[in-house]
Amino acid sequence: MSNTFGELFKLTTFGESHGEAVGAVIDGCPADLEITRDFIQKELDKRKPGQSEFYSSRKEKDRVKILSGIFKQKTIGSPIALLVENRDVDSSNYEKNRIRPGHADYTYHKKYGHFDYRGSGRASGRETVGRVCGGAIANKILEHTPMGVYGHVKKIDEIEANPSLKQIKENTYDNDLRCADSKKLEEMKKQVREVQQKNDSIGGEIEIVVTSPLMGFGEPVFDKIEAKLSHAITSIGAVKGIKFGAGFASSKKLGSKMNDEIRVNKDQAFFEKNDSGGMLGGITTGQKIHFRVPVKPTPSIGKKQQTIDIEEMKEKEIKIEGRHDPCICPRILPVIESMTRLVLVDLGMLADKLPTNQVE
Amino acid sequence: MSNTFGELFKLTTFGESHGEAVGAVIDGCPADLEITRDFIQKELDKRKPGQSEFYSSRKEKDRVKILSGIFKQKTIGSPIALLVENRDVDSSNYEKNRIRPGHADYTYHKKYGHFDYRGSGRASGRETVGRVCGGAIANKILEHTPMGVYGHVKKIDEIEANPSLKQIKENTYDNDLRCADSKKLEEMKKQVREVQQKNDSIGGEIEIVVTSPLMGFGEPVFDKIEAKLSHAITSIGAVKGIKFGAGFASSKKLGSKMNDEIRVNKDQAFFEKNDSGGMLGGITTGQKIHFRVPVKPTPSIGKKQQTIDIEEMKEKEIKIEGRHDPCICPRILPVIESMTRLVLVDLGMLADKLPTNQVE
Amino acid sequence: MSNTFGELFKLTTFGESHGEAVGAVIDGCPADLEITRDFIQKELDKRKPGQSEFYSSRKEKDRVKILSGIFKQKTIGSPIALLVENRDVDSSNYEKNRIRPGHADYTYHKKYGHFDYRGSGRASGRETVGRVCGGAIANKILEHTPMGVYGHVKKIDEIEANPSLKQIKENTYDNDLRCADSKKLEEMKKQVREVQQKNDSIGGEIEIVVTSPLMGFGEPVFDKIEAKLSHAITSIGAVKGIKFGAGFASSKKLGSKMNDEIRVNKDQAFFEKNDSGGMLGGITTGQKIHFRVPVKPTPSIGKKQQTIDIEEMKEKEIKIEGRHDPCICPRILPVIESMTRLVLVDLGMLADKLPTNQVE
Amino acid sequence: MSNTFGELFKLTTFGESHGEAVGAVIDGCPADLEITRDFIQKELDKRKPGQSEFYSSRKEKDRVKILSGIFKQKTIGSPIALLVENRDVDSSNYEKNRIRPGHADYTYHKKYGHFDYRGSGRASGRETVGRVCGGAIANKILEHTPMGVYGHVKKIDEIEANPSLKQIKENTYDNDLRCADSKKLEEMKKQVREVQQKNDSIGGEIEIVVTSPLMGFGEPVFDKIEAKLSHAITSIGAVKGIKFGAGFASSKKLGSKMNDEIRVNKDQAFFEKNDSGGMLGGITTGQKIHFRVPVKPTPSIGKKQQTIDIEEMKEKEIKIEGRHDPCICPRILPVIESMTRLVLVDLGMLADKLPTNQVE
Repeated sequence: MSNTFGELFKLTTFGESHGEAVGAVIDGCPADLEITRDFIQKELDKRKPGQSEFYSSRKEKDRVKILSGIFKQKTIGSPIALLVENRDVDSSNYEKNRIRPGHADYTYHKKYGHFDYRGSGRASGRETVGRVCGGAIANKILEHTPMGVYGHVKKIDEIEANPSLKQIKENTYDNDLRCADSKKLEEMKKQVREVQQKNDSIGGEIEIVVTSPLMGFGEPVFDKIEAKLSHAITSIGAVKGIKFGAGFASSKKLGSKMNDEIRVNKDQAFFEKNDSGGMLGGITTGQKIHFRVPVKPTPSIGKKQQTIDIEEMKEKEIKIEGRHDPCICPRILPVIESMTRLVLVDLGMLADKLPTNQVE
Repeated sequence: MSNTFGELFKLTTFGESHGEAVGAVIDGCPADLEITRDFIQKELDKRKPGQSEFYSSRKEKDRVKILSGIFKQKTIGSPIALLVENRDVDSSNYEKNRIRPGHADYTYHKKYGHFDYRGSGRASGRETVGRVCGGAIANKILEHTPMGVYGHVKKIDEIEANPSLKQIKENTYDNDLRCADSKKLEEMKKQVREVQQKNDSIGGEIEIVVTSPLMGFGEPVFDKIEAKLSHAITSIGAVKGIKFGAGFASSKKLGSKMNDEIRVNKDQAFFEKNDSGGMLGGITTGQKIHFRVPVKPTPSIGKKQQTIDIEEMKEKEIKIEGRHDPCICPRILPVIESMTRLVLVDLGMLADKLPTNQVE
Repeated sequence: MSNTFGELFKLTTFGESHGEAVGAVIDGCPADLEITRDFIQKELDKRKPGQSEFYSSRKEKDRVKILSGIFKQKTIGSPIALLVENRDVDSSNYEKNRIRPGHADYTYHKKYGHFDYRGSGRASGRETVGRVCGGAIANKILEHTPMGVYGHVKKIDEIEANPSLKQIKENTYDNDLRCADSKKLEEMKKQVREVQQKNDSIGGEIEIVVTSPLMGFGEPVFDKIEAKLSHAITSIGAVKGIKFGAGFASSKKLGSKMNDEIRVNKDQAFFEKNDSGGMLGGITTGQKIHFRVPVKPTPSIGKKQQTIDIEEMKEKEIKIEGRHDPCICPRILPVIESMTRLVLVDLGMLADKLPTNQVE
Repeated sequence: MSNTFGELFKLTTFGESHGEAVGAVIDGCPADLEITRDFIQKELDKRKPGQSEFYSSRKEKDRVKILSGIFKQKTIGSPIALLVENRDVDSSNYEKNRIRPGHADYTYHKKYGHFDYRGSGRASGRETVGRVCGGAIANKILEHTPMGVYGHVKKIDEIEANPSLKQIKENTYDNDLRCADSKKLEEMKKQVREVQQKNDSIGGEIEIVVTSPLMGFGEPVFDKIEAKLSHAITSIGAVKGIKFGAGFASSKKLGSKMNDEIRVNKDQAFFEKNDSGGMLGGITTGQKIHFRVPVKPTPSIGKKQQTIDIEEMKEKEIKIEGRHDPCICPRILPVIESMTRLVLVDLGMLADKLPTNQVE
């Protein structure tokens, strides 16, 4: 198992979906950083279930408790342990040996000799509570820099949002689909509702923009910023890939079109465009970092599916009743933002651009 | 800098494009594995320049020398050091302070106070010699399992190859574009030649298939197999993303279409299809692993481009003469295969599926 | 900060002495291991304060709560989070800016801009609760092997215990000084009481024996078993060194006396003696591992000491009232045993001698 | 195998005693550091064999070659690869299956299925060439700070040197026993000669002093400076322990005697003495760091010893002819200094006290 992420700024998460609690330990946060419980809670609220017709109806307050590392609302340089108790644990809808298609049941069973029929255990989306805890602390560190991480639901099915950066900043968290393009919101809602009524689910795409990145983040060869971000983000369940800048479209480009030419204005270098996604040779250029992430449809659906009983080794049908999100994109967005922030802080510390002992 | 990759099976690489040599140290290879210099050489020859009208005309024999770790053609459990001397070093075509668009010159200069005008130093594609050295050793370990890693150039520009697995295995390395679909080979050649004549370059896409993967590779949460592969492969220069299984198309799918249903045949479970890409919850299912990788056009082009002199901070034009690949796809393919093999061996060791001390 | 230990079997600890709680996350424990709360509690009880006239009178039940990773008394392969709340937190006896000699106050203040005047925070011995939590899980894994870790208080001041291995196994935890040699127990008690009456403290020495170690633990060159054990054990506060086998006495030996000669009995190799301490070239020989550890006297003493007020930068006197152990040896013993177990499990997994996914 | 050491400043070593070459890759060295081949060579010359009647008569020039990472005598931020070819390889004196007592032959055979009868392979002292290469680079970084690492042979057998710090700095490398106390040098020489004439070997003790350490090096809990130094130094073959400051004597001390009281002079805090060894809570206090290390006698001796043939599993006698050091202390000293420097640089980078990208 590998439940720790990061080299200098380290996040360790724990907790199963239907266990006592989920939580996180954040190690490597410098001392003297002001941070309140409310700030962390606000981040967690973004991924909380039960807030919308589009979210799992599981009733979790997801109230975070600070166990260590913060004293009188200031970090003290020791590990920050955060705890979120599981309250609304309902295991009644799970059938013990029936593998849910698209889930980790089958692979966990092969690896560990069992799978957690109560709601996927660590393979549940509930695992991401710990990631958002870590992302909140990282966010506080980034607040001391010019950098900002902003995301939105770029696509649901084929419906594509085309918001401005300003709209992304202002609108994303104003609606429960995290759509920053008000012209597309209703269409998206309609689509998700339709899918939901059919006991089915639908995928989408997330876009992330990092504004005003400092230069020099990213370590040559094996820990390029692309590599670290890719690792972080494809480690999230339901994510099926990632593309930076021009991404897959770069495969169709001529070099003369792909290369971002450089100019000078008042002794400052600038790039004419940003097909690179804000990184060259794995290191930030200072331009906006931007990338996109495909998210598969939630595998838990009410529709009848063909599967097996893993103990009897017999074919069975399954209808997953439970309480599931028809489209996981809105709730995965804050998780992707969180992982992005964790990577930025870790790379910033590795590159000597962010403090490791005390906030200056 | 981060020049070491892997946790139990570790590759460390070194060497600049125009320095004395490039090389690799592979640590964690079990003892008693038969391995010859020729075997490693054969892998290196796949990425060697100067073999084709489509490759950089730099003349390097890329002859590998074994410095340690192998005695009488058997590994002994100690680190395997491999060395490839740089012979045909021609630095005459480089202009000292002129930033090459699409290259790492600008970011290295910001991070390290200089950039290697002689041919990019560590940011050169020549760095990948070390990766292929590591991949060769990994390949030897995989030969003791049913697993195989096979790739091909899926696309150049918009031209898409659609070979069978058999064709991939048989044809890929039979032609210098690494195109496994004989019906598309000539079209691809024509396209690359055209681009080359215009002093330009073009991108493409690589596809990788892992056959007969063992089950249980991949560690839950942060070191899922997707995460490790993404990290490994997006750490290669010119790679702009990755997608697993249905990839970005999964964003447009219904759950009932995306989920791979499960059946039983003669007491063996099997999946009806493989949109997951061979992984669920970050762990191998035993189905083929498959993923695709966009590769940007080589940034070094003969065409005139707008740039700056970083010392004078003045706008300049640049035409990169040198010896450059019009399409880097064929030569990046063995690098992507190598990184895939490194990840598989490392995850196999982490999951207790491959030996770490002695080959049994 | 570095609050994670181990490569494959990872312990992360958190919590300050006077914060909400202390705890641990153990990652990498194989699935299907039977483990009860009581078993962990029993290990924790060994280092609990308030049990004896010789221990700090702080009243902590140190009741451990399992938050994750164990379901129906079996591990499930996911991280095991354990929590111990701080109950008897008394910060009244601490003076805010007065540096306590022999403590981490001064160095923490320099590094983090403050120190935790409430009882040392992470620099308190209370931090070791998390280590013992981890050690308990490791102990369960070792129970599935022939290996056993046994320690005792070898010395307090100049009084040296010389118990047999049998006595170490049977007597150590029968008395509150953890003295396995009944002939020396009273003398030790007398000595500690005397020191205590003078408001002073005294040091001692711990001895550890690992019985029936498996062969092949320890990785050549940088992660020799000595290196891993040294790292683990000198990371415990108050420990001032370590020596393996003949230790410092080996500096006075002739090679012909130091070398352990080898013989054969019934086709089994055996060593004539064990001055090596059970390790050669950093790898276990199969002989008993044995080493000794000097423990300094508790720095917190009631006696008047010369110090400074770090804010005023003025000389001051200090008498540390609080509730302190006159000799920390008995309570540090289970911590050293725990760290030893953690190292053995981690090295056993690295050497492929212990399972990482499922207990077989 | 674990042939990489360090987190931010990483040393990877390779090469067997009787293979082609030994060498090192140093990763994480900041750019723009002036460093010549001669500087590295000078460090290597300190551990070179064949220089003295007291050293192995193996004839190795140990001429170091720089393969990468340094251009025009300046580091460029990429990994520094250093190579030392093995020239005087004489395998004639080794018997193939006869286990040498006190060596790693037995344990390597158990772990890897063989041992390197040609001179121990990686378990040979020749492995330390790579450590000294790394230490040389670290030393260059430390030259940009006030810190200095100075060692000497404190003891051979019972003969104890008591030099002043000035003598250590000036005398240590003036004689081939690395004895800084001129009054004890002849006595030590006589003792080593006597032992040598008896075909035997003798142990000793090394003392290290770090002058003017910066404050704040060392990470709380698991990566205390003691822990990192212990790990580094007990990973060297022949080392049987370590003690910091008062060391084992601290076990006999009262708290009131052990604690280093603090005073103020002209607004500067200072400690009245230094029994702590320059570290509190695992972090440097700014006082001198000092520690001592016992070194066992060279296991290779000409005297007849009892052993086994590992293939026949029969008892045999062995006389090790070869070319061996009667006392390894003088040649292990630069290795211990090197490991100390590596730890200081790594901890300095972790604590943000030393640059990681460019030398400022």
